Amino acid sequence: MQPTPSSASGPSPMPAVPTVGIIRVLTSDDPTAIAEHGRLLERHYGFPTFSRCIPGQPYGIHDQESERCAEPKIVALAREMAAEGADTIIISCAADPALERTREAVDVPVLGAGAAAAAVSLGLGTRIGVLGITDEAPPGVRAVLGDRFTGAVRPREVRRTTDLRAPHGAPAVLEAAARLVESGADTLLLACTGLTTIGIRPRLEDLLAVPVVDAVLAAGLMASYTRTR
Amino acid sequence: MQPTPSSASGPSPMPAVPTVGIIRVLTSDDPTAIAEHGRLLERHYGFPTFSRCIPGQPYGIHDQESERCAEPKIVALAREMAAEGADTIIISCAADPALERTREAVDVPVLGAGAAAAAVSLGLGTRIGVLGITDEAPPGVRAVLGDRFTGAVRPREVRRTTDLRAPHGAPAVLEAAARLVESGADTLLLACTGLTTIGIRPRLEDLLAVPVVDAVLAAGLMASYTRTR
Repeated sequence: MQPTPSSASGPSPMPAVPTVGIIRVLTSDDPTAIAEHGRLLERHYGFPTFSRCIPGQPYGIHDQESERCAEPKIVALAREMAAEGADTIIISCAADPALERTREAVDVPVLGAGAAAAAVSLGLGTRIGVLGITDEAPPGVRAVLGDRFTGAVRPREVRRTTDLRAPHGAPAVLEAAARLVESGADTLLLACTGLTTIGIRPRLEDLLAVPVVDAVLAAGLMASYTRTR
Repeated sequence: MQPTPSSASGPSPMPAVPTVGIIRVLTSDDPTAIAEHGRLLERHYGFPTFSRCIPGQPYGIHDQESERCAEPKIVALAREMAAEGADTIIISCAADPALERTREAVDVPVLGAGAAAAAVSLGLGTRIGVLGITDEAPPGVRAVLGDRFTGAVRPREVRRTTDLRAPHGAPAVLEAAARLVESGADTLLLACTGLTTIGIRPRLEDLLAVPVVDAVLAAGLMASYTRTR
């Protein structure tokens, strides 16, 4: 049986080669949308992926309540995907929801997009600015950054990942990122995977001339480390 | 003019394509030895490299005095390599000697093997054990790991990077690594690039079933992030 990279909806065949399972926390019934982060990682890193989303969260994770609600769904989905042959699981959300619980629940490496982005940021710079959809940096990101965290900003009128796709989304992100760099950040961490979806990293790097760490790409980078020797 | 990947000694031609400059802190007059880390990165990540070593340190960096002595040499070498066309500099030493000073001295990204290894470790695990050639973890590694540092060990009878190549080197490393995992580490960080030179990572992962972060590969991973968009 051939693997089905980025298969995204319904019961999909069990992967026949080592494959990275991508958990999306934004509910969708569009297989293309669900598979979007997985396809990005396939293009960047060359490993096959398959993607699923948790049910019942059309606005994703954007506050404590939506995060608490998502956690058991993520653990259950990770168990399913590991049973179906995922050899690595990526939780594609910068809040790292259920990261520790999922690591305990399955026997394969589990990567959180937020923790991975924080990690990559520490490798690249010293004063890390965090750009997300909440006023505070995600706690998991903050914990990894320690005293190298320099500040967090939220783009104006952006409160949920879906707001990033509105007409005002991208300009608000550029403005917020510039504020972080002006306040001394030497590296930017994109703390919402909706920023991956709108593909903003190259524009930010061109505009601001600092490394910009995309959380989905950072998780993929970590996955690529565990997959080569 | 064609680039000369891993050119290692004497005046080498200026790279004609974007190339990663590798600074070795172990002095050698053997071009093959000097180019060893660079060639490993070329195989793993596919980017071209060229390598140089600092003068006058046949035992590398193994204590505060040898580190202080190396720092100005590293800054000077980084300036030379950037002028010759390096678009990224890797300081291939887990002590991250002169990392901040070198970042200030040149206009290209500068990666330290220790900081990169600490960063990758934080992406992969929660309780990081550090295996190196000093009793304490390198301060730069320790700073990045924060409260996720679980302990440091030094293999018995190993005090300098060159000791790792002696007959007792590899067995002592395996024994020390097992102690770290027994004491609760879920991820191991190899805090001496001499451990890269002896190629010990696959054996450790097979033996101990935890992710093992090689510092040279971690720096290469970070370089590969900055080089793709």
